Amino acid sequence: MRLFEDLDAATRVGPGIRRDSYGEGENAAHVIVAEAARDLGLDVTTDAGLNLFMTLPGRDRDRPAIVIGSHLDSVDNGGNFDGAAGVLAGLAIVAGYRDAGRTPGCDIKVAALRCEEAHWFDGPYVGANIALGKLDAMYLDGLRRSDTGRTLADHLREHGGDPDAIRGGAAHLDPDRIAAYLELHIEQAPVLVERDLPVGLVTGIRGYRRYANATCRGAYGHSGALPRIYRHDAVAATVDVIARLREEWRRIEDEGGDLVFTVGRIATDPDHDGPSKVPGAVDFSIDIRSTDTAVLTRMDDLLHAAIDEAAAGHGVTFDLGERSANPPAAMDADLLAKMTRAADDAGIGTMEIASGAGHDAAAFATGGVPTAMIFIRNRHGSHNPDEHMEMADFGEAVRLAAGLVAELTV
Amino acid sequence: MRLFEDLDAATRVGPGIRRDSYGEGENAAHVIVAEAARDLGLDVTTDAGLNLFMTLPGRDRDRPAIVIGSHLDSVDNGGNFDGAAGVLAGLAIVAGYRDAGRTPGCDIKVAALRCEEAHWFDGPYVGANIALGKLDAMYLDGLRRSDTGRTLADHLREHGGDPDAIRGGAAHLDPDRIAAYLELHIEQAPVLVERDLPVGLVTGIRGYRRYANATCRGAYGHSGALPRIYRHDAVAATVDVIARLREEWRRIEDEGGDLVFTVGRIATDPDHDGPSKVPGAVDFSIDIRSTDTAVLTRMDDLLHAAIDEAAAGHGVTFDLGERSANPPAAMDADLLAKMTRAADDAGIGTMEIASGAGHDAAAFATGGVPTAMIFIRNRHGSHNPDEHMEMADFGEAVRLAAGLVAELTV
Repeated sequence: MRLFEDLDAATRVGPGIRRDSYGEGENAAHVIVAEAARDLGLDVTTDAGLNLFMTLPGRDRDRPAIVIGSHLDSVDNGGNFDGAAGVLAGLAIVAGYRDAGRTPGCDIKVAALRCEEAHWFDGPYVGANIALGKLDAMYLDGLRRSDTGRTLADHLREHGGDPDAIRGGAAHLDPDRIAAYLELHIEQAPVLVERDLPVGLVTGIRGYRRYANATCRGAYGHSGALPRIYRHDAVAATVDVIARLREEWRRIEDEGGDLVFTVGRIATDPDHDGPSKVPGAVDFSIDIRSTDTAVLTRMDDLLHAAIDEAAAGHGVTFDLGERSANPPAAMDADLLAKMTRAADDAGIGTMEIASGAGHDAAAFATGGVPTAMIFIRNRHGSHNPDEHMEMADFGEAVRLAAGLVAELTV
Repeated sequence: MRLFEDLDAATRVGPGIRRDSYGEGENAAHVIVAEAARDLGLDVTTDAGLNLFMTLPGRDRDRPAIVIGSHLDSVDNGGNFDGAAGVLAGLAIVAGYRDAGRTPGCDIKVAALRCEEAHWFDGPYVGANIALGKLDAMYLDGLRRSDTGRTLADHLREHGGDPDAIRGGAAHLDPDRIAAYLELHIEQAPVLVERDLPVGLVTGIRGYRRYANATCRGAYGHSGALPRIYRHDAVAATVDVIARLREEWRRIEDEGGDLVFTVGRIATDPDHDGPSKVPGAVDFSIDIRSTDTAVLTRMDDLLHAAIDEAAAGHGVTFDLGERSANPPAAMDADLLAKMTRAADDAGIGTMEIASGAGHDAAAFATGGVPTAMIFIRNRHGSHNPDEHMEMADFGEAVRLAAGLVAELTV
């Protein structure tokens, strides 16, 4: 609680939190956390990417370690809990070992990872991937911070990082030397609030298929004079496609599959549309996310079939534009089962839940590390100053995580 | 053919035709047509609204007259046939009487009506309604020409019209003294072209219910993290409404009903939308047109039911905004039957067709005059320089109209 307060005091700017990646705010948070780790007598070290590792040595230092981590950066005008809760949870767990005077069977390493928020550098879990030695070097000069315009390499160098070592493939963490990666994170949707549960056990991190700039082109015409059969109505065709995908969403949900489907943008051409015109053009976006690659593929295939059918039926053409995609990151089934049992034993109310947003855990899971995530109930979403985690819920999540860590480090 | 050429030569500006209402272009057309009427020995007169009436006296001048009319104005950069074809058709028919040395049983009055195109004055069939003494006086000072910004009254006065007489209710035509109003007009959709028929017999002029500025408001959210049940997705809700109305359109068509339904504009908010956001807002338009008031009401009722259901189902709110509406104008069933028989007898290929666009005939039909309309096949739509009527098709339409007029003026 004191550490949350210290982080808040050091990084609140106006109504919100500002912990800019590889900047003043994130650095301030790292200083606070490192000092707390040293107070606990942990081994504190950083890597070429300025990730912070705080290690409680185990009885057998050759045994693969347990890593408990998350990030300390926040979006601009964000909240105090997104990311930080996971790092402080790690410290709370090792503090428990210290208080009890107990030594775990293997190392427990708390990781404060850098630069997770795409708000600043629009890259893939930059700090986590540097820690694992798998950040594509092109990002070092290719990513520029959204506010400064300066490159990632430049920001790294400014604060004592070593872009050349990263380019050379330096890796502080070896996936083969990690028994499990565990991340606690506030939920960024209201599911736990709605279901009145303090804790969620994450089944996987959704991958996505996204068409941010899809178009449909037909022909403009007189809305009163043109019969249906002679229309080339771009909106009608696009509505048919969306309706069909939404039907399939319901079907997949009925089958117990995981999916979210969103048309976040749709717009006729304001220079040519009108309430009395058959619309000849519409631009739209498609976002498909699932923890299950088969579901992503099923929806993506259906999208292609639906636009072909709508194109033929309406006499229009579709261009889906460039696709961006990310595979799902599966959480470890054995760890999930262990957490479920531990929660039952401890009387902690939980539910299984998919993560729609990306997390550092995805970098570990796709890197071959057995990975588990715990969501903590949180009100008002995240990435805004109103995010709100109750300390009692944080306590329940830590209690559950500590139980899992105890089981893994016997 | 000569008159079409004269009109073209006098009013072509650049690639298109410009016959501005109560302006130079429309005036030039009226001069050409009036001169042709005088050459035919017709009684030529104008009214307070500068409508031009060219009368072939009948044997019994007390018998209600047949009026054959349309307008001579065009949109800016329009084509040569929209409107003018109907006036020249009237002259062609009375020229036939002259050539044959025959006198009809009653007067045949060819009307070149003013100011039909909303392009210049966005009012309701201004010339036709002045001729019938039913133009709401508020329009005289309320309507301003789109290019000059000057009022209708001002434009009328400039060219010798009499706004005060119009204000006083002056009417050149008395509906009770008109046996039938007949209008020939190019089709403004490609139905006759597609069906390979020279002539269409108009069943009615569609009325409309239009919501030009409807809105749906939900809540923005994370497209990856927010499950379906917790979304307030404005696009999904609006798509449900549109899909339901489109289904009903098919049902009404299957039942043989007349309807066109258009969502001409739809747009999420470019300042707040995004491909990774559940959309919290969408603006859209709804345009419902039918020759049948019952169909308009059925669709309008369904729209209201559909938004109520979508609002409840998606947790969003709809505001349809201001509704504009115009009742359908029914064509006279007896005249339609007569034309159908006459076309059969003359071996002219026709089909029944609804008019989606408005025409002067609507002012006569709603004024209680038995009204008939004939569409002439036309390529490339209207209100553009590419509209294209074949003279052979014009000839077939005139032949059909002349037969009807002969039957009515025995």
